[in-house]
Amino acid sequence: MKDLLGIHSMGRLDIEGLMADSTSMRTAIEGGHPVTQSLDGVCVANLFFEPSTRTRLSFDLAAQRLGGHVITLHPDASSTAKGESLRDTVLTVAGIGADILVVRHGLEGAPRSIADWTGLPVVNAGDGTNEHPTQALLDAVTLQRRFGATDGLAMAVVGDIAHSRVAGSLLHAMPALGVDLTLVGPEEWLPDDAPAPTTTNLDDLLTEVDVVYLLRVQTERGGVISDDYIARYRLDRERSARLAPNAVIMHAGPINRGVEISDEVAESPRSLIVEQVRNGVPVRMAVLKALAEGRT
Amino acid sequence: MKDLLGIHSMGRLDIEGLMADSTSMRTAIEGGHPVTQSLDGVCVANLFFEPSTRTRLSFDLAAQRLGGHVITLHPDASSTAKGESLRDTVLTVAGIGADILVVRHGLEGAPRSIADWTGLPVVNAGDGTNEHPTQALLDAVTLQRRFGATDGLAMAVVGDIAHSRVAGSLLHAMPALGVDLTLVGPEEWLPDDAPAPTTTNLDDLLTEVDVVYLLRVQTERGGVISDDYIARYRLDRERSARLAPNAVIMHAGPINRGVEISDEVAESPRSLIVEQVRNGVPVRMAVLKALAEGRT
Amino acid sequence: MKDLLGIHSMGRLDIEGLMADSTSMRTAIEGGHPVTQSLDGVCVANLFFEPSTRTRLSFDLAAQRLGGHVITLHPDASSTAKGESLRDTVLTVAGIGADILVVRHGLEGAPRSIADWTGLPVVNAGDGTNEHPTQALLDAVTLQRRFGATDGLAMAVVGDIAHSRVAGSLLHAMPALGVDLTLVGPEEWLPDDAPAPTTTNLDDLLTEVDVVYLLRVQTERGGVISDDYIARYRLDRERSARLAPNAVIMHAGPINRGVEISDEVAESPRSLIVEQVRNGVPVRMAVLKALAEGRT
Repeated sequence: MKDLLGIHSMGRLDIEGLMADSTSMRTAIEGGHPVTQSLDGVCVANLFFEPSTRTRLSFDLAAQRLGGHVITLHPDASSTAKGESLRDTVLTVAGIGADILVVRHGLEGAPRSIADWTGLPVVNAGDGTNEHPTQALLDAVTLQRRFGATDGLAMAVVGDIAHSRVAGSLLHAMPALGVDLTLVGPEEWLPDDAPAPTTTNLDDLLTEVDVVYLLRVQTERGGVISDDYIARYRLDRERSARLAPNAVIMHAGPINRGVEISDEVAESPRSLIVEQVRNGVPVRMAVLKALAEGRT
Repeated sequence: MKDLLGIHSMGRLDIEGLMADSTSMRTAIEGGHPVTQSLDGVCVANLFFEPSTRTRLSFDLAAQRLGGHVITLHPDASSTAKGESLRDTVLTVAGIGADILVVRHGLEGAPRSIADWTGLPVVNAGDGTNEHPTQALLDAVTLQRRFGATDGLAMAVVGDIAHSRVAGSLLHAMPALGVDLTLVGPEEWLPDDAPAPTTTNLDDLLTEVDVVYLLRVQTERGGVISDDYIARYRLDRERSARLAPNAVIMHAGPINRGVEISDEVAESPRSLIVEQVRNGVPVRMAVLKALAEGRT
Repeated sequence: MKDLLGIHSMGRLDIEGLMADSTSMRTAIEGGHPVTQSLDGVCVANLFFEPSTRTRLSFDLAAQRLGGHVITLHPDASSTAKGESLRDTVLTVAGIGADILVVRHGLEGAPRSIADWTGLPVVNAGDGTNEHPTQALLDAVTLQRRFGATDGLAMAVVGDIAHSRVAGSLLHAMPALGVDLTLVGPEEWLPDDAPAPTTTNLDDLLTEVDVVYLLRVQTERGGVISDDYIARYRLDRERSARLAPNAVIMHAGPINRGVEISDEVAESPRSLIVEQVRNGVPVRMAVLKALAEGRT
C-alpha cells in the first residue's frame, strides 16, 4: 500500500486485508505476545494541524508498538508560528528523515497535497469534511467482531452528514463491505447528492436497523446544538428500547454527552463505543505496517 | 500494588519496599548497569491536567528507562478543547491501550475517580490540595540516604500546610517512618484539625529539628507572598546558622527564590534540594515497576 | 568533545571529524544499515525556549536513531509558567537524570550558562543572535558533498548578518574550512567590525561566487521586509541566471517565500535547501555521539 488518503479509492479486498491484520495485532497485544517490529528504524511523523486526543495518541502508540521512531509536530510551537508555508513545513519534515507521515488538517485534500509534495506514504488522519479513513476501518473491524460478518447489516448514520469526515469515510467503507446505509438528519445537514437513501425521520427507522451510528455535532466547526435536534435525534432510553434485540450503537467520539446520546445508552450493553476505541491502535498498526511494507 | 493514590493507605512495609527498590534503581543508573525492562510492551500514559516540569519529565524518563512506551496528553491540544468530559477522555486513553495512568489534576480525588472509571492502575502525580505521594516517597529516600535511617528524626514542615499536597503526603509518610513532625506557618495556613503539633513560630523551633522542609507559596493558586511571611519564615543565613550542625533543608520545588529560602542557603551543604530531584526518577521507576507487577 | 557551544572555539580538525562522522551516519541511514546505539541508556533533554520545527525534530530523531531516551521541555506547559528561574529549571532537568542538554534560547550565552550551572554536555541549538553551530556544520557537509572539498570556495552570505546566529556560526566555520566569505546586505544589517569583506551590492558579486547563502529576514525578531530589500537582494530568476554554471544557493530556513528567494529559484537544481535539511539529522547524530563519548 502506498498511501491511505481515503476509503474511496480502496476495494473490498484492500479493506478486508487491513481488517484481518488489525485483528491479528489486537490478539497479539491482548495476549501479551511480542509483535513483529515492522517499523524497526522507521520514523513516523505525526503532523496534527488540528487538536486530537484519540487519533494522535493511537498513532503514537501504534508506531511505538511496531518499534518505530515517532516525531510529533505541535503546530503551536513550530515554524508555522514563523509564517512558514505548509508545503515548506512538510518538506522539512520529509527532509529530516520521516518515512511515513500521519496528517490531520482542517482543509480537505491537504493529505493528498502533502503526499504529492513529499513523495512519502501519507495516512489521512482526518481532512476537513472529507474523510477519516482509519476511523471507518476501525468501525468495520468493530462490526465484524460483533456480528461475525458485515454483509447484509443495516446501518443508520445520524447527524450532520454533510460536514462529517467520519461519514465521508463510512459512505465508502460500509457499502464496500455489504452494509446497507441510510443517512438520517435534519434537511440542512443531509448532502444534496447523497450516495445512499436519506430521511429526516429517525424514529421510523429504529426498528429496522442493526446499527445506529451517531455523528458528533461539530460545535468546534460552527455546528449548533438545538433543542429541536435533541428532541428528534438524541438516542435516549425510549429510542434505544425500540431497537431490535441485537442492534448496536456506535459513535466516533468525542461525545457531546446528552446531545447525540444519553449517558445511560452510551454505557448500555448495546454501545460499542469502547470497542471502537479499542480497535483504534490495532487498525493503525495494520495501516502503518502496510505502508512500511509498501516502501520497499 | 494496584494503585498509588496516596500515602494515607500505605503501611510502613509498603513504603519501605518502594524505597529499597528506588535505591537499587539509582545504583543501577549511576553505575551504568542495565535495568530490568519491567515495562517491556507496557504503555504508560502521562495525563497532566496542570503544568509540570519535574514530575512529568521524571515519569516520562522513568518509564523509558524501564523499556515502556509513553504517550502524553497535552490538555491544550486535546479533545478537552472540544468539550469532552474528563471521564470520556480517560476512558478513551484506557481504550487506546494505556496500561498505567499517571495523573495530575487540580481537583482532589480526580486520580481515584479515574482509577474507578478505568479499572487501570493509577499513580497520583498531584491532585488539588490532597496528596502528591511520589514526592513524599522521594523525600523519604533522600532522608534515608542522608541519615541512614528515618526513625526519630524531627522535621519542621513550613508554609502553607493547609493548601499543600506535598504536605498532605508528608503528613502520612513521615509519621509512618518514625519521623516527628511539627507544622509551622501563619495561623491562616495551618489546618484546623492538624494531625501533628503546630506552631506559628519558626524561630523557636530551629535548634530542635533535624530537617526543615519548606513548602512553596503557591502563587499560581492564589497564595500571596507578603513581606510579613518573608520576615517570619524565609530560611536565610541567620536562621540556617542556628540549625543543629547536621540539620538539613528540603524544598519540593519549584522554588520562589528569595521567598521561602535565600539563594545562599538553597545552595549550601545543608540543602538536599538537588538530592530530592535526583531521587525522583528512581522512585518513579520503583512505583511503575510495582504497578506493572501488580497487573499480572 | 565536552560541549558544542559554538564554532568559534573549534579547530578545522574538530569540524572535519564531525563532518566525516555525519557522512557515515547518513550512509548508514540511507542504506538501511543498523546504526551503533551510542546513546544506549543515555537521556537527551530537548530544551527549546523558542519555537522550532526542524531543529527540535532533528535532535529528537537523531537521539532516537542512536538508541537514546528523549525528554522534551515545552516551555509553555512547564514550571517556567510558575515563575521558576532558568537556572532552577535546568538544574532540575539535570537532577532528573538528563545526560546531554540541547538548548535553544533567545539570549546569547544561555547555553554556556547552562553548561556552567549543570556541568553537563550542552549543544547550542541557537542562542539569540550569537551562534547556531549545528546549522553551520550541516552547511559545511552539504558543500563538501556537492563540491568534494570546501577549500577555495567563494561564498556570499546575504541579509541581516548582524542579527543572524546562522551567520554567527558561518563566520567561524567557513574560514576554518578554507571558504572565502563576503558579507552582503543593507548597511544597517552589516556588522560594525566585520571579520570578512562586506558589500551592500549583491549584483556585483553574483558572477564571482560559488555559493550564495541567503539569511532569513527575522520578522519574529523585528526584522522588516521592505520593497527595497526585495528589489536589491531577492535571489530571483534574473540574478540566478547570472551565477556561474556550478554555483549553488543555500538557505537555513524557514524561508520567507518571495522575500529572500523566489519560488522557482528555491526549487531549481542550483538550490541545496533540501540537501541542507537532509544533513540535519546525521550531523546531530555525530554531535550527540561525540558528546556521549566525551562523557566517559
